[in-house]
Formats: sequence, C-alpha cells, structure tokens
Amino acid sequence: MSYWASNNMTYCLAINVNNGLVFCSDSRTNAGVDRVSTYSKMYRFGVENERQFVVLSAGNLGTTQAVVSRLKRDIKDEAETSLLTVESMSDAAEYLGEINRAQQEKHADNTSGANFEASFIIGGQILGEKPRVMMVYPAGNHITTSKDTRYLQIGESKYGKPILDRILTAKTDLHTSALCALVSMDSTMRSNLTVGPPIELVLYEKDAFSVQHSRFDEDDEYLRELKKAWDARLVEAFVQLPAIDWRPESPDESSEV
Amino acid sequence: MSYWASNNMTYCLAINVNNGLVFCSDSRTNAGVDRVSTYSKMYRFGVENERQFVVLSAGNLGTTQAVVSRLKRDIKDEAETSLLTVESMSDAAEYLGEINRAQQEKHADNTSGANFEASFIIGGQILGEKPRVMMVYPAGNHITTSKDTRYLQIGESKYGKPILDRILTAKTDLHTSALCALVSMDSTMRSNLTVGPPIELVLYEKDAFSVQHSRFDEDDEYLRELKKAWDARLVEAFVQLPAIDWRPESPDESSEV
Repeated sequence: MSYWASNNMTYCLAINVNNGLVFCSDSRTNAGVDRVSTYSKMYRFGVENERQFVVLSAGNLGTTQAVVSRLKRDIKDEAETSLLTVESMSDAAEYLGEINRAQQEKHADNTSGANFEASFIIGGQILGEKPRVMMVYPAGNHITTSKDTRYLQIGESKYGKPILDRILTAKTDLHTSALCALVSMDSTMRSNLTVGPPIELVLYEKDAFSVQHSRFDEDDEYLRELKKAWDARLVEAFVQLPAIDWRPESPDESSEV
Repeated sequence: MSYWASNNMTYCLAINVNNGLVFCSDSRTNAGVDRVSTYSKMYRFGVENERQFVVLSAGNLGTTQAVVSRLKRDIKDEAETSLLTVESMSDAAEYLGEINRAQQEKHADNTSGANFEASFIIGGQILGEKPRVMMVYPAGNHITTSKDTRYLQIGESKYGKPILDRILTAKTDLHTSALCALVSMDSTMRSNLTVGPPIELVLYEKDAFSVQHSRFDEDDEYLRELKKAWDARLVEAFVQLPAIDWRPESPDESSEV
C-alpha cells in the first residue's frame, strides 16, 4: 500500500425509498495497518428550499480530497457549472464524474503502482425532480438505483449487502431504512478492520431540502446499544427458525469409503 | 473466464464447535454465465468407528476433480499415504495440500491466463484426536480454526460471514450451527448468482465416526420455508431495534453551503 496517498477501504451506502434518502459512511482511512486515521467521507451541499446534495467518497484520499475541493471551489467561484447550477441529479453525477476522471488523469504517467482511483455516491434532490442517488465510478460514468435495487454502495460492500437485500423495498420507511444502513455498517465494521467509526448518518425527507445528520463516535452509546440489541434479536430469530428437515439418503449417496 | 477449465465461484464452509462439526457447500459451477452446471463440491471418506473425513472444494474444476480422484485412487491402491493411513487431521491437510500443489504445477507453463488454483476444506475426526477442520490454500499450506474463530470458508466468503460472526461460539449446539450454515449460504446465494443449489449439509457429531448428510435441491420446500422464516424474523427483529438516537448538531457541522 502506498504511503504518499492514503487509500481508504471505506464503506459508504445510500438508500432511495419512496419517502426520501438515507446516507451512511464510515470515517476510517488507512495506508497500511500502522497508518490509520480518521477522515469524514461525507460532504453536504445545499440551498434552502431549492437543492440538497450529499456526496460520499471512497478510494484514494488524495483524489477524493482534490475532487471535493474542486466541488467547493466551483461553488465559491460561481463557476458556470457547479452543484449550485446543475439542472438535474444526473447532470450533477456527470459533472462529478468529469472532475473525478480529470483528477486521476493527473497521475496517468505514475509508475509506482499506487492506485489513484476514487468512487463517489452523490444524491439528494433538486427542486422539480424526485430525490435521486447516483454512483460515480473511477472512469467517470455513473449508475442510479432502480425500482428493485434501492441502494448503492462504494468500498467494502459485500459484508453489509445481505441485510439491505432482505429489508429494503420502495415502501420501507425512512427510519427503518436508516436503521438498516446502521446494521449494514455494523456488519461491515465487524468483518473489516479498515472500516470504522465515527459513523455518519444522514436522513433526507423528500421535498425537505435540508437534512438530518448524526455522527456516532467510537464509544457511542446508541451504536453499542444497537449492536447489542441486534445480536440479541438475531439469536432470538435463530431460535425460532424451523428445525432442519434432514433427508434420509439413498444408499448410493452414502460415504464414499 | 476460461472455457477449457470451469471455475466455480463456490461457497463452502465448515464449522467446529464443542459438540462436533458442520459442513455446507453449494453445487454451482460456471465458466461464464452461459456455461453453468451442477457439481457436488463435497466428498466424504470414512471408516466406521475409526476415521471420518469430509472434503469441500473451490476453484478450478479440473484441479479439484483431479485432486479428489487422487484421494480416491490412493485409498483404492492402498498407497502408503492416503486418507486411510494419515495419523492426524494435520497430516491429512498436509497430504491434501501436496496433491493440490502438484496438480497445479502441471500447468505452471500455461500462458493462457487461466487460473488453475484450488482451495479445500478438510475436516472430520481420527480416533484418538478431537474433531478438527483445516483449510488448504492453493500453495498447499493450511490453517485451522481457533478458540475464537469457529469456522473456515472457501470461495465467495464475504456475504455469509456476518451471520457466522454473530452466532457461532464454541458452545453453539450442532443443530444451531447447521442452521447458521444454511442461513449463511442463503445470504450468499442471494448476492452471488454463481453460488447455487443443490446445497449439501453434513453434521458430524463428535466421536460418531459417521455423518448425517442432507441435500437440498433448487425447489426444496424446507430451504424455501427457512428463507421465508428468516426474512420474517429479520423484519420482526428490525421492528424491535432501538430507534435512532439523532444528535443535535453544533452549528459548524451543518451544511457546507
């Protein structure tokens, strides 16, 4: 792993349900196990009653910081294209993708083997549009959620995926969605040490054009309570599962020796 | 993906608890999404009242089939070293590792880019030893479970890991462990299409020197019932989780624009 540009393994996810959006991110960054530090991977940009964005980042920390700086500078400089001028969430993702690609191309001739790639999730709402969530790949292209796939993930996505698949539908309410995001994050933190607190959580209610944000630190009492409760409920759930229906075997299927 | 040697993505796991062992494997093999077929990845070898082995395989199908053939041939030929002669589970893993490495070395000069690697889990009991489980890497080396880590996985391991981490301890009873294996398998099948039924499950009770084996096909009623029950219990568990304790923000943490 390269020491001149920290790579965050990261776990970030965004959920899109009928009533709004949920964003959740970890804050651990590492360049080797002895270079662990804490950086927020969640950025919020908004104009009251008009537009609200949340950006989540994963990948090379140099790249993600440069990209977010550029987003901020374009706003400050009142650039022709910025998060304050884009007309749709799709345009916002396209704009973010271009900045991301341009930033990575600066290192095109680097031969160190370092990975300068970064991925982003950008979501929110622009007045006149529904709330939307997009995932921006290192190549600059993007995808969005669908009727059947209500969430997008970047970084270490596998450990936390099953719970999302089981719980989320378009009709899941916002608070259940947020809980689901926290449980998904908890599963990921247990299994991958490079994903860690503080955990940031944002809840965006449709047409609110403002967000509810919470940050849960390492020793957060609620996070600990949630983890403990989920463990207990899971064990209870197990006890209630139907006993295995063992099948008698035909003789030719029995032991090979 | 290479067409001349199917690669199974696979999910296999073995659990080692105080009362015995559990083995679980899927049966889907693919060489590209249009070359999907069904092969058992579980092999049993036993001598009544003396020794019992279960072998699980992942990786290149050519390699795993050749390795298992060799295990069988060594038994049939009454070779000096075979699963019937090894004195410990550790020796069994060493023997399996050597065969595995030798089989892969046959392709050392192959320049096609095909991956001939394979991994195995071997577990069971030899009279005089406790039940044990070993994982054999493509390089031929092996690891075993520990007091704190009660399971080993090969193949697509991430999706099914959280539930194992949450449920399994040394004291978990065998049936709960087997249920946990099936739920872990179910989570993996939902998330990775290259892992699929029939699902094979083996329960080995300590000192039994024989196994209880069951095979659950694609349309198996119990598997469907288990999946449905787990979904329902998970949703119930969610409803009981403590509501999110949202934190008021200090002004400097609020939206960036």
